[in-house]
Parts: sequence; C-alpha cells; structure tokens
Amino acid sequence: MRISKLSERAGLPVGTVKFYLRSGLLHAGRATSATQALYDETHLARLRLIRAMLEVGRLSLAEIHRILDSVDLPVADPEARVALVQAAIAGPTESDPRDLMEATALLAEIGWQVAPDSPHLPRLAKAVRAARSVGLNVDRNRLSVYADAAAHVARSDREELDAVAPQDRPVAVAASTVLFDPILVALRRLAGEHQSAIAKGPVPAPRVPAPTA
Amino acid sequence: MRISKLSERAGLPVGTVKFYLRSGLLHAGRATSATQALYDETHLARLRLIRAMLEVGRLSLAEIHRILDSVDLPVADPEARVALVQAAIAGPTESDPRDLMEATALLAEIGWQVAPDSPHLPRLAKAVRAARSVGLNVDRNRLSVYADAAAHVARSDREELDAVAPQDRPVAVAASTVLFDPILVALRRLAGEHQSAIAKGPVPAPRVPAPTA
Repeated sequence: MRISKLSERAGLPVGTVKFYLRSGLLHAGRATSATQALYDETHLARLRLIRAMLEVGRLSLAEIHRILDSVDLPVADPEARVALVQAAIAGPTESDPRDLMEATALLAEIGWQVAPDSPHLPRLAKAVRAARSVGLNVDRNRLSVYADAAAHVARSDREELDAVAPQDRPVAVAASTVLFDPILVALRRLAGEHQSAIAKGPVPAPRVPAPTA
Repeated sequence: MRISKLSERAGLPVGTVKFYLRSGLLHAGRATSATQALYDETHLARLRLIRAMLEVGRLSLAEIHRILDSVDLPVADPEARVALVQAAIAGPTESDPRDLMEATALLAEIGWQVAPDSPHLPRLAKAVRAARSVGLNVDRNRLSVYADAAAHVARSDREELDAVAPQDRPVAVAASTVLFDPILVALRRLAGEHQSAIAKGPVPAPRVPAPTA
C-alpha cells in the first residue's frame, strides 16, 4: 500500500509516518521510484505498536525507539531476545546503592529469585524510596501483597507468551509488558471503587410498615 | 526555614522551587519582607510529593497540578474529598462509546460494582483497545486474572487508608495511588524474572554412574 493508505489505516497523519521513517522508528518500504515506496502489514503493525506505546503506554519516542531496536536485534536465541527486550523496557535507571540493597533484600525475604543485576531492581528501589519520601508505608507486608498480585499476572503473562511462536515473542513481550501496565493500573483504581461500593453495602430495601396486629 | 534551606532539603534547585511557587503548585510561604518568606514542613512535604510524582509517577506538571488542586479543595466530607482526588488522578480521557460499553460489560461479568460514569472506565477501555490493536489477547479470562490482582492490592490500599486520619486521606490517596503504580509495575517485571528462574529449575546435580551389578 502507499503511504497515504498506510497512514489512514494506522490513524496517523502522513507527516507523522514520514517522521517515523526518517527517525528509523519505522522500517523503510519497498521503493518503487525515487519518491515513492510501498508498505505492507509489517509497517501497519509497527505503527499501531508505536501509537499504542505512545498514547496508552505513555512512553517517550526515545523509549519506544530503544525498545523497538531491541525487538529487531539479530539474535538467534529466542530466550536471549526476550531478555534483551525486557532490559530495554526497564531502560537505564540510577538508584542509590543502599536503596538497591534494600530492594534486593526485600525480594529475598519474599522468596523471589532475581538476578542482582536485574534491570528492574533499580526501578523498584527508586519507586520504594519515592513512596517512603512522602511518608507512605512500604514495609515487607505491604510489598508482599503487591508481589503476590504481580506474581499472579506474571504467571498469566507467561502462559500467553508460551502460546506465541518463538520468532514473534520479542514483539509480543514488548507489547504486552507495556500495554498491560495501564490495564492493571486502571483495574487497580476500579477495584478501589468496587470495594468502596461494597463497603457501603447494598441499597437498603424500602421499609414496609409492619402490619398492625 | 528560608527558600535555600527548603530547596536543599527537598533536593531541588531554588529556581525550581520558585517556579512551583509562581505556578501555584506550591503554596506561598509566610512573608517576612517584600522579598523574603519563611517555609515550613508543609512546603517540604508538598515538594517531595511533586518530585516523586514527577520523577517516579511519571506525571506531567499539569497532571500534578490538577491532582494537588483536588487535594486542596475545601470540601468537608472526607469520602467526597477522596472521590474528587481519584477523579483528578484519572483525568479527562476520551474513549469510544463502544469500547466503554465493552469495558463496562467485562467488569459486570467479573462481578464488580462500578459506577457507569467512573472516571477510570475510559482509561480501561482505551488500554484494552490499544492492547487489542496490536494483536494481544484481552479476553474475559485474562482480564479476570488482572482484576483479581488489582482487587488484592486495592484491599491492602484500603486498609492502609483507613489507618490514616480523615483529614490526611486526600493527600494519602493521591500519593499512594500514583506512587504504588510504579512499585506494582516493577514487581510485575521482577515476578516474570523470578518465574523464568524457576522454570529453568535448580541446577541439576552431577550424574553419578550407577554401580555395576
């Protein structure tokens, strides 16, 4: 398809598609002349992923670029590719070494096996520190509750991923990691509403005057 | 304390603190002259919250402004104040009416009582649509897993909130809603790593040759 059709199907302006092509976020089409090229479903899928990561995943273009570069890396081993994508999603995060040690210790108490150089540990350490800096309680018990919830969804994520063809797993990991976060976050808010509704109890039935004896 | 001390304790440049004062994100100090003012612990707490929401919660200044405005609203009823903060956190989100209906129907199937005009429903609807637009499976079963996890943390959030003095709840809701999201998200990634480590199993013991009969 031409770029006009591609942009229409992706729901993006042609100028945006051209910008993604120039910046390397989107792979080039098949050139048919000096100024024209044809695009296929792989271009459309990539544009939809960029758009979803930007609008719903709330990532920056630089972050999306880093993640998509990792998806496209010419590495043969599927497990290694998935690990590279996960590292790219975490991105570089600096955290205080003491915070990092504490986060590591907390996970050990919970009984999780996590590599000490996991790219996600600094993220956790930084988030725990930020929560504490404003006076929130982030003790082992509360973190355990969150860890149980995280383990529950991670098991489901893994089952879904196992059903995907190995060569498609890097992009599936990138998409599901980034796009299920906002689903989880929205459900966390809605669960709070649901529990408030329950706490108020059912709407009381109208009182019927007792029959006079 | 003076602005220099305040900025030092908050870990922010004086220029940033002055910008937050000018833009109304931070309440004014007690003026001691035409050019000087004194600040107290309430200013420090607010600066720490702004910083955490910006750096770890990944919110924009406009979003933080909206949330903090809702925290400061002069509403007497504590429950109403909490609801206002939650609506401010959700913010205005547009979603397709069909997506919204579907998200509402999914929650009804799960058995959640959520107001049809909940500000979080459009967020869920949009996230589900985005995930599907890139080919991810978001069926009722998978959403149930995520909903169970969300309900688990929301119960813990509620218990924590009940322990907070009613007048402090609006700010506690704002902080814990925004700052536990990144904790949950980081734990989701780490849970995936932990489960990969488990799946690989323990390092096999060296094979001992069977004794010859």
